[in-house]
Amino acid sequence: MAKLNWGMIGGGAGSQIGPAHRLGAQADGNFVLAAGALDLDAEKGRSYAQSLGVAEDRAYGHWREMLEGERTRPDRVDLVTVATPNSTHFEITKAFLEAGFNVLCEKPMTMRVDEGEEIVRLARSSGRICAVNYCYSAYPMVREMRHMVKTGEIGKVRLVVANFSHGHHGDAGDADNSRVRWRYDPAMAGVSGQFADCGIHALHMATFVCGDEVEILSADFASTIPMRDLEDDAMVNFRMRDGTVGRLWTSSVAIGRQHGFDIQVFGETGGLRWASEQPNQVFYTPLGQRTQIMEKGAADLSDEAGRLSRVAIAHPEGFPLAVANIYVDLASAIKGTRRDALPTAEDGLRSMAAVYAAVESAAQKGAWVDARPPMFR
Amino acid sequence: MAKLNWGMIGGGAGSQIGPAHRLGAQADGNFVLAAGALDLDAEKGRSYAQSLGVAEDRAYGHWREMLEGERTRPDRVDLVTVATPNSTHFEITKAFLEAGFNVLCEKPMTMRVDEGEEIVRLARSSGRICAVNYCYSAYPMVREMRHMVKTGEIGKVRLVVANFSHGHHGDAGDADNSRVRWRYDPAMAGVSGQFADCGIHALHMATFVCGDEVEILSADFASTIPMRDLEDDAMVNFRMRDGTVGRLWTSSVAIGRQHGFDIQVFGETGGLRWASEQPNQVFYTPLGQRTQIMEKGAADLSDEAGRLSRVAIAHPEGFPLAVANIYVDLASAIKGTRRDALPTAEDGLRSMAAVYAAVESAAQKGAWVDARPPMFR
Amino acid sequence: MAKLNWGMIGGGAGSQIGPAHRLGAQADGNFVLAAGALDLDAEKGRSYAQSLGVAEDRAYGHWREMLEGERTRPDRVDLVTVATPNSTHFEITKAFLEAGFNVLCEKPMTMRVDEGEEIVRLARSSGRICAVNYCYSAYPMVREMRHMVKTGEIGKVRLVVANFSHGHHGDAGDADNSRVRWRYDPAMAGVSGQFADCGIHALHMATFVCGDEVEILSADFASTIPMRDLEDDAMVNFRMRDGTVGRLWTSSVAIGRQHGFDIQVFGETGGLRWASEQPNQVFYTPLGQRTQIMEKGAADLSDEAGRLSRVAIAHPEGFPLAVANIYVDLASAIKGTRRDALPTAEDGLRSMAAVYAAVESAAQKGAWVDARPPMFR
Amino acid sequence: MAKLNWGMIGGGAGSQIGPAHRLGAQADGNFVLAAGALDLDAEKGRSYAQSLGVAEDRAYGHWREMLEGERTRPDRVDLVTVATPNSTHFEITKAFLEAGFNVLCEKPMTMRVDEGEEIVRLARSSGRICAVNYCYSAYPMVREMRHMVKTGEIGKVRLVVANFSHGHHGDAGDADNSRVRWRYDPAMAGVSGQFADCGIHALHMATFVCGDEVEILSADFASTIPMRDLEDDAMVNFRMRDGTVGRLWTSSVAIGRQHGFDIQVFGETGGLRWASEQPNQVFYTPLGQRTQIMEKGAADLSDEAGRLSRVAIAHPEGFPLAVANIYVDLASAIKGTRRDALPTAEDGLRSMAAVYAAVESAAQKGAWVDARPPMFR
Repeated sequence: MAKLNWGMIGGGAGSQIGPAHRLGAQADGNFVLAAGALDLDAEKGRSYAQSLGVAEDRAYGHWREMLEGERTRPDRVDLVTVATPNSTHFEITKAFLEAGFNVLCEKPMTMRVDEGEEIVRLARSSGRICAVNYCYSAYPMVREMRHMVKTGEIGKVRLVVANFSHGHHGDAGDADNSRVRWRYDPAMAGVSGQFADCGIHALHMATFVCGDEVEILSADFASTIPMRDLEDDAMVNFRMRDGTVGRLWTSSVAIGRQHGFDIQVFGETGGLRWASEQPNQVFYTPLGQRTQIMEKGAADLSDEAGRLSRVAIAHPEGFPLAVANIYVDLASAIKGTRRDALPTAEDGLRSMAAVYAAVESAAQKGAWVDARPPMFR
Repeated sequence: MAKLNWGMIGGGAGSQIGPAHRLGAQADGNFVLAAGALDLDAEKGRSYAQSLGVAEDRAYGHWREMLEGERTRPDRVDLVTVATPNSTHFEITKAFLEAGFNVLCEKPMTMRVDEGEEIVRLARSSGRICAVNYCYSAYPMVREMRHMVKTGEIGKVRLVVANFSHGHHGDAGDADNSRVRWRYDPAMAGVSGQFADCGIHALHMATFVCGDEVEILSADFASTIPMRDLEDDAMVNFRMRDGTVGRLWTSSVAIGRQHGFDIQVFGETGGLRWASEQPNQVFYTPLGQRTQIMEKGAADLSDEAGRLSRVAIAHPEGFPLAVANIYVDLASAIKGTRRDALPTAEDGLRSMAAVYAAVESAAQKGAWVDARPPMFR
Repeated sequence: MAKLNWGMIGGGAGSQIGPAHRLGAQADGNFVLAAGALDLDAEKGRSYAQSLGVAEDRAYGHWREMLEGERTRPDRVDLVTVATPNSTHFEITKAFLEAGFNVLCEKPMTMRVDEGEEIVRLARSSGRICAVNYCYSAYPMVREMRHMVKTGEIGKVRLVVANFSHGHHGDAGDADNSRVRWRYDPAMAGVSGQFADCGIHALHMATFVCGDEVEILSADFASTIPMRDLEDDAMVNFRMRDGTVGRLWTSSVAIGRQHGFDIQVFGETGGLRWASEQPNQVFYTPLGQRTQIMEKGAADLSDEAGRLSRVAIAHPEGFPLAVANIYVDLASAIKGTRRDALPTAEDGLRSMAAVYAAVESAAQKGAWVDARPPMFR
Repeated sequence: MAKLNWGMIGGGAGSQIGPAHRLGAQADGNFVLAAGALDLDAEKGRSYAQSLGVAEDRAYGHWREMLEGERTRPDRVDLVTVATPNSTHFEITKAFLEAGFNVLCEKPMTMRVDEGEEIVRLARSSGRICAVNYCYSAYPMVREMRHMVKTGEIGKVRLVVANFSHGHHGDAGDADNSRVRWRYDPAMAGVSGQFADCGIHALHMATFVCGDEVEILSADFASTIPMRDLEDDAMVNFRMRDGTVGRLWTSSVAIGRQHGFDIQVFGETGGLRWASEQPNQVFYTPLGQRTQIMEKGAADLSDEAGRLSRVAIAHPEGFPLAVANIYVDLASAIKGTRRDALPTAEDGLRSMAAVYAAVESAAQKGAWVDARPPMFR
């Protein structure tokens, strides 16, 4: 059970996502942080990496330096996590895949659809793992829902309703708050604001749980705070390949909603409900019967949910350990055991295609448009 | 404090809505059931009315008989409740308004928009009260939300999200269940299924709480159970007069949702949340502050909420007393004291216009259409 | 279906309990208010009664006047509700029972145990109904729990935990608030404060749901606000006849708890949980299985719960209609159909015996004492 | 920021508590597992330790071997975690403290009060850290409550109510289930069953949040499943030094309760409520105001809660990271920065004194007894 070597790009001092990845990678003892290019400021990055236990010669000043340093080492890192600003994901992911590394990329995987297709092709040709951090999909009870859908517990899925609506950007006075403003500025955020930021988590969740893909969609975007160029609220209706109806609401001005990420799945013989603020329960209603409260860690769950639960029933596990579960599955995938539930480059590509489709639909007053990446049509 | 005379049409033996109206009208001692034409079967209707204490000569066999019998009496009924099958609402309401009676009509007020306009004109010219039973609007905490919006507590409303989604028609095996089937049969239900049945409650709630009206809308309808001709699931996006963005989801195949009627209102300086299954609380989040749990019966509520609450804080009051609150307001209105919060014929008309607009939009793949009745454009 | 004649003592203008009883008695059309002595102030009582529709000659100035007036009438009231100050319950209930009336008495039925025994003997010898308004026992889902226990659904009951703890007397500054102060003053409240006020509701609930009686108890009383002579917080442990362990916490200084009345019942093969603030659900966990959410109005409930539910599943019904259910059962009992679930004089007596036992135990530092009325030992 | 060396005793393959400690110690990168005696079976322990990355010479076969091996090393472990069967805690903790190691001991720290006093003396004289794993006290929102009490936010505390009641031992058929049976067998569990197992977590929580200590208590124990020699349900009333009234209910037969650990604290000017199944919220009700929902990660919390929260508001963190917070505080304490909130040997001793006091009280039918360890009287 030797630990795997892990490298990280981005996530330096003061970053919020850095600690989440480090906790996730190290929580179960699968990975050891062996290399890193953690900061745009080379010196700060090097010294921070060393403070985290990285050897001096693997504490890099830039991701290109890391690429060069690692590619030739016999003990080169088994996995690179890309947690840099969104606009750099494509370039870095591409470079490391080309060099034969396994990559976990933060979402969004790319800023454009053609870039996404390029990554998918590269991941396929390289045979390397390219995962995207749709970490919510790794909650044990999300896996349980997916398992239930797959095994037909609720029959053919008719309808899926996913929301990711919070209120943390609801203050018009935040115009000068740099943590908020860039998200609604096309120069920095790209073609979409809230939908690209949170909506695609919900969209991925819908496809993940249903085991299906979005074919067409219709979007209504709104910028409820005047100065914003990109949407802070969006409703997206969609249809999946097998006919499932989809409804997705995402907002950042829903004051009072904190995380506000939930999903409901309705099939021919039952319904499921899960909410990220209480991630250890699923409410399951078999047709014509009472609603049952399913609990993480219970003996009657699937192996898939069981293996991703660390502590006993009703001992809550939260977001950081969902991230850790992504690393659990990465460790397995690297070792060749399994990778079936990991969010992949295909997922990252589909998200980006959906973002562009939604933007186009919204611009065309809700016209239904093809949401599939060209290469999957 | 003499009681008002009340007459009822429909709501005979075995009806579910009949007892709710009788409880509502009599709970606070405002009305006494003085006349009734309760059943399509004249004899059953007469005998059932008498069993409820109606005098023999006012226990009518048909609503036309009741109209004739009551119009000339000095003690004629002060209010007529119309609780007959939907397709008859227009004709009966019209006849009684023309004869100078006050009317409370079950929803939908009419089956067509032009009929709705006719009722509105009639109500205006007659000076009589014509109310529509959007009873959820009479919950104390719904009135409180309306009061908060009106007095600016949450600032200008940016976004309203209303759902009325249940799962009670989710069984495909119900094809032969007569209580379910007619709702999706255009011959009996008209142009719309679930949206006309439940959606308009949610739409009225949104306009009621916001004090605004729907101008345009875009709808996506789905019939998730194959044999159904009308939609059993619908998403309606809308915009209000003052720019508020609206999202409304209604479904009858959301297995596991019981009542499933809730509303969220998001303004510039706060958010509100209410759900009909726990109607005695409102969750209020002032911008940048903690969510507060507001309780029916609390000392810090508005007079409007206070006067419609009968028992002390945290002693729950439910649906039947919301209906009763409609009668409380009807009694006041009849006596001339106030009528400002009663749902009116205008509301009934707007609902029907929205139903037709949604049907048209859905047929046109979500095109945005004018949701206003022609007479209000 | 002629209405029964109903008389009321107490509950005049400004009273909170008066409207609850009137709504309860009249909601389902079973009773008509035919007589009343509603106020200590004879004139106010007479005129208020008339304003509620009582005929002039039956709008009495005093309960003795009412007793004399009604006893000889051929249309004398079928039921008398006693909703006067606690210290007068015994005398009035006794007088009306002796005169052959059916009585519904507010709790506490008496202030002393010997008085309670006298009422029980009288009720037995007279053959009249003497009910005590433990109205929470008439919630449909409470009846359902009782039914489940009775039919063995959870096996032999091992443990029952009932709480009735609120925070409405938690303000030490209320020393001069007359609505609060008397409750902790032995001159007005008798031997016990919070336990006699709220605790006995919880105790009755425990015995009602379990179908068992308290044999012995041990109490810990506390006056957490210095100036109070009677307890504002109490813990009572008890044992029932068949060995069930009981735990009962009642408090009036639990700031933040609103109604705070709930019960949990644990048997050999399952557990049940109900809370008065969400009275339409019961959470039921069969041993080794998932928790199920049971809903008032569901098709799978017992007849007993079904007949006391007025509106469809998930349409909430609250406290006033629980009171109304007491009147539904009273109407049946008066007509001779059934009375098995009505709280009786025996229940009122047992409560008083438990209050005295708890006071004695608390005074003796928690010694276990017999909680049964002498006549039941 | 060099990592601290960490050693573990117990927690070998198949143990549930082992992974929780490893995750806790390593999640934030403070500790590296440098030594271990993980199993009673020397060989299995050695090989399992090595599989976790422990060097061969520090993978010990027995804790005494580890004690000898580590005591003389210059890089000896900075902290030893004792996660062995309860009856061995005292001996091992004592030995390592005597040898000058810092120790984190699982609860119960000892099986007897005199042993506890010995550990306390030893911890004091040695100047080493001796912490006990009352890990619930390290939830950010528990720290927040403690902070609020300390800073007077709810005034003087009048009443604290703590429950730790689950239903996982509710199956009488578990007589042969070795994971359950030993807990109710005095030969293995000692003088108390459920109170010593779960109750002392609740008791510690009460003292921790209130910043006070239990002086006297009165207990009622019950064995609701006949074959059990020790209690599976207990109610403990207590009084704290400053007069606070305490109520503590603990059960293992409360079928349907999963974790079932919660606390309510009521002061002169407010109330607080927290539940371990939803650990990221505190419900706070200022006297006379609305209940507020406080959220982990919110900007308005104390520094103490803030520093123990890893991810943004409403991103749930659960039990394993509460354990991790204990290690965060241990790392600080070892480095000398702070140790004020760590549960100490004093806490472990007080728990054991309370257990013996409760057993004595229960045997004496609830007599009030001194709950303090002799050395603190």
